[in-house]
Amino acid sequence: MKKAKKYHIDFRIWIYTEKDKFLGKGRVELLERIDKTGSIYNAAKEMKMSYRQAWQMVKEINERANTPLVEKKLGGKGGGGTFLTEAGKDVITKFHKLQNKVKTFILEESKKLDL
Amino acid sequence: MKKAKKYHIDFRIWIYTEKDKFLGKGRVELLERIDKTGSIYNAAKEMKMSYRQAWQMVKEINERANTPLVEKKLGGKGGGGTFLTEAGKDVITKFHKLQNKVKTFILEESKKLDL
Repeated sequence: MKKAKKYHIDFRIWIYTEKDKFLGKGRVELLERIDKTGSIYNAAKEMKMSYRQAWQMVKEINERANTPLVEKKLGGKGGGGTFLTEAGKDVITKFHKLQNKVKTFILEESKKLDL
Repeated sequence: MKKAKKYHIDFRIWIYTEKDKFLGKGRVELLERIDKTGSIYNAAKEMKMSYRQAWQMVKEINERANTPLVEKKLGGKGGGGTFLTEAGKDVITKFHKLQNKVKTFILEESKKLDL
């Protein structure tokens, strides 16, 4: 008798506001890299996106958030930069918590799969 | 004060065996259309896929299933055709049940979102 194959479930989640995508895995990663590098340009580079694309994404994210998640510091000694607001950090934490909750649920369902 | 935006979660699931995709929404739809039309050719056409692509997909699905989900009837009066085995119908039902379970869970999480 052939050994039964092992199956598992994979998933992805996205958060929408009305019909517009607000956040998914990629956008959260972009926010995290902006937080780390202090720059949309460097975050885009790390993700192999164009600056234009990343900038457009940040614009959409801010518009679709209840309060801006990304802001710009004006020039001065360090030459300014981009940073996440408290709301930005909060949304990232909430996305990861949600992701983990769904993951736990999906793992349980994976165990029950009988195909 | 601005009215808080309403957010909801969207999701997709896939079933894998080891590293290979076994089933997702699209493949299940292909199986359902084969069941309905009795033909890979017509199912592919309905989904705007090439016959070659659909045939390749069915081949992979059958290889990754514990027992074939799609079989061919040999010629005869009606000229043969393609049909789903009992295992095929069973897998479709199980996929939809799983999809609905995850949907229910995701809906509950959507209600709890506070972004």
